[in-house]
Amino acid sequence: MNERIIDKALNDLKIEILRMGSIVEKVIGQSMQALKDRNPDLARTTIDFDPTINALEIRIYEQCIQLLARYQPEAGDLRFITMAMLINNDLERMGDLAVNICERVLELADKPLVKPLIDLPALTELTRWMVTSSLHAYTQQDPVLARSVRTRDDEVDRLRDAIQNELVRIMQAKPDTIDHAIPLLLVARHLERICDHATNIAEDVVYLVEASMVRHQP
Amino acid sequence: MNERIIDKALNDLKIEILRMGSIVEKVIGQSMQALKDRNPDLARTTIDFDPTINALEIRIYEQCIQLLARYQPEAGDLRFITMAMLINNDLERMGDLAVNICERVLELADKPLVKPLIDLPALTELTRWMVTSSLHAYTQQDPVLARSVRTRDDEVDRLRDAIQNELVRIMQAKPDTIDHAIPLLLVARHLERICDHATNIAEDVVYLVEASMVRHQP
Repeated sequence: MNERIIDKALNDLKIEILRMGSIVEKVIGQSMQALKDRNPDLARTTIDFDPTINALEIRIYEQCIQLLARYQPEAGDLRFITMAMLINNDLERMGDLAVNICERVLELADKPLVKPLIDLPALTELTRWMVTSSLHAYTQQDPVLARSVRTRDDEVDRLRDAIQNELVRIMQAKPDTIDHAIPLLLVARHLERICDHATNIAEDVVYLVEASMVRHQP
Repeated sequence: MNERIIDKALNDLKIEILRMGSIVEKVIGQSMQALKDRNPDLARTTIDFDPTINALEIRIYEQCIQLLARYQPEAGDLRFITMAMLINNDLERMGDLAVNICERVLELADKPLVKPLIDLPALTELTRWMVTSSLHAYTQQDPVLARSVRTRDDEVDRLRDAIQNELVRIMQAKPDTIDHAIPLLLVARHLERICDHATNIAEDVVYLVEASMVRHQP
């Protein structure tokens, strides 16, 4: 009987994490769209989601604390709750980074265009995949998918470096693009950090399912 | 009797967090020194600390899980352990950012000097203060000091913006400084993020002592 009560409570927690995840996925998608279309209105609408995400983070955190206090869980249940706390944290920061991308879009709004960058769409697509797959791995408790998210983190770093090098070359050739290139360079960093958080979530999924800690392993 | 056993275990956990904190404080200080002196050797020595910090993060995390499983703590004890988990996470990321600063120092090693920046030493000093004070607030369980750390986060953002604007002006005036200015611009971002994590720790100290959640409040 007691077991069924905690199962219900853990399931409620999972639903909240998935709700948080889908909002964060949405704001990341919108921030990318706002960047692609140079759409400051969409950027502003997306920034407006931030208080919702922040409130959800606090609610999930308090839900975790209550679960720990009320059910004194062990083994798998305990891992589930502590991982929910860490994933909650990562999701909130991913939301912050989507806000950062939108802030860069607002900075870019009144500046002349830099020629389309080769690797920025590739990094955007990879980031979208990392976010969706890490959340999918969590929903499905799928360590295989989680490990494949982790594997692609090096590719993210390579794309970020390629974008940065290309932007430096553009700025050196045409110094009047500096104003515009700097926000794009920061966008590449924001995307990379979103992928880092997706990787953290993937590593937490492996720990959740297999009880083995892959964090910081090559 | 049981109470005394958990007190000992909680104290052991606190000692580990302080140990982690002092290593992270040290690597941040060294990364700043390496930057100031343009010292790639010191940058490399500092990067070598990263595996130690990573191993400590995992050990502390496992210690927290064990404490939760073994003692089924309530109220203040439960807050103490969950905050230790979050602070542990913030400290590890601060260590990563010190490594990032060192990586920028290595990139700068063979590049010509940009003229000394007005606000970079100010941001470096403020970051040092934020890190030391947030850890001191944790050690002393001092919510007054913790709140004062939190208050200065806006100043950090202003300094970062000032540095970025100054660097953009320098690059526009002398495009041959771009190669050197970009790593410095990223250093300002790394320092700002270290301060964000120090602010997180300060907010966790307020929650720990007063059980009131100040995160995301103005």
